Amino acid sequence: MQQTIVEDIIKKVMDQMGETPAEKAAASCDAAIPVELSGRHVHLCEEDIKELFGGPLTHVKELSQPGQYLCKERVRLIGPSGVIDNVAVLGPARPKSQVELSLTDARILGIKAPVRQSGDVAGTPGVVLTSGSGLAGLEEGVIVAARHIHMSPGDAARFGVSDNQKVDVHMDGSRPAVFKDVIVRVNKDFRLAMHIDFDEANSCGLGKNARGRIVGVTQEA
Amino acid sequence: MQQTIVEDIIKKVMDQMGETPAEKAAASCDAAIPVELSGRHVHLCEEDIKELFGGPLTHVKELSQPGQYLCKERVRLIGPSGVIDNVAVLGPARPKSQVELSLTDARILGIKAPVRQSGDVAGTPGVVLTSGSGLAGLEEGVIVAARHIHMSPGDAARFGVSDNQKVDVHMDGSRPAVFKDVIVRVNKDFRLAMHIDFDEANSCGLGKNARGRIVGVTQEA
Repeated sequence: MQQTIVEDIIKKVMDQMGETPAEKAAASCDAAIPVELSGRHVHLCEEDIKELFGGPLTHVKELSQPGQYLCKERVRLIGPSGVIDNVAVLGPARPKSQVELSLTDARILGIKAPVRQSGDVAGTPGVVLTSGSGLAGLEEGVIVAARHIHMSPGDAARFGVSDNQKVDVHMDGSRPAVFKDVIVRVNKDFRLAMHIDFDEANSCGLGKNARGRIVGVTQEA
Repeated sequence: MQQTIVEDIIKKVMDQMGETPAEKAAASCDAAIPVELSGRHVHLCEEDIKELFGGPLTHVKELSQPGQYLCKERVRLIGPSGVIDNVAVLGPARPKSQVELSLTDARILGIKAPVRQSGDVAGTPGVVLTSGSGLAGLEEGVIVAARHIHMSPGDAARFGVSDNQKVDVHMDGSRPAVFKDVIVRVNKDFRLAMHIDFDEANSCGLGKNARGRIVGVTQEA
């Protein structure tokens, strides 16, 4: 292949053009984005919390994004073809209940969960939740969370990206991959972290302290 | 970002250079490679077949690679932290037994299976197999099969790639990704097919009749 020659020419062209902010960030060691694996979990509305547990959620520990926390309470998910026990409940309460699964989980339950951004649950499948003492049936709310990166406006400026842009991220695993369509989410309260599910982590053989690097733009915001 | 300008320049440079065989193939519609999902399965040596089933394997149906077939026999896998039932046995017998899992499966069993090419099992973890009537303990042989593409010498020429080269493959799923380090395996008896596991398929949201496209070279042979 003429791959090497092409790469040389591209490099020379780009050297003359100057790097884009994203490329500059990617070339520097501080371009690494910490990757966090999201296990299956649920967010609950006040009404479902009351039906399942009678009283308010019990705070156990803070999560990486400020204000979000793991609760003592756990739920069972019941789908047409399977059950998953001991699923984490995250607080605080949200306006609508939402269940975030991997595609592997969704297949166990027999639910065709679409890949969606958190909060975008219109028209998604439902599921039954039980707690041992209560039951809640969700009409909708089961999603596979679209992979995304939380970042502050400062980080966004540093990477040369903007809110809702979709970027390509190189994953430094034992079998490397580039994930496309990774949604950038910018908020002053966000701490830099890329969130993926266990299917995605397994597909690139990610270990502990895994990192991603933005290497391109899939789609502008 | 200056992404668009860079892409324009790259395109002009490459137009003047002429395309490489892989790029030419990728640009044409016949560059699509059928993707097949490999579920967990085992290959057995004659000795383990005898211990587990007493007699020879029973042919059920041909698989996509000529000479390989699914058997009627099934096994249970037993690891330190879990059990997986009803695992497919593929024939014919091989010189060494080998168990191919996804990383999700390996975690259920509690086995640290490395990503390896089929047949490369030296130093890998073992597992216990049972059949209902027999038991076989493997000293080694549990792997996560490295993603790979089977192709004939004709296909290799068409794609401009060679045996044991590692290539980058764009996966056309609902959340697209580029898998790097995909091993090209060329043999006159191979039928064109890319083999990945369920973690990998889920990570890019692959549907039925999924296709991959070679978009670059990760590493020369």
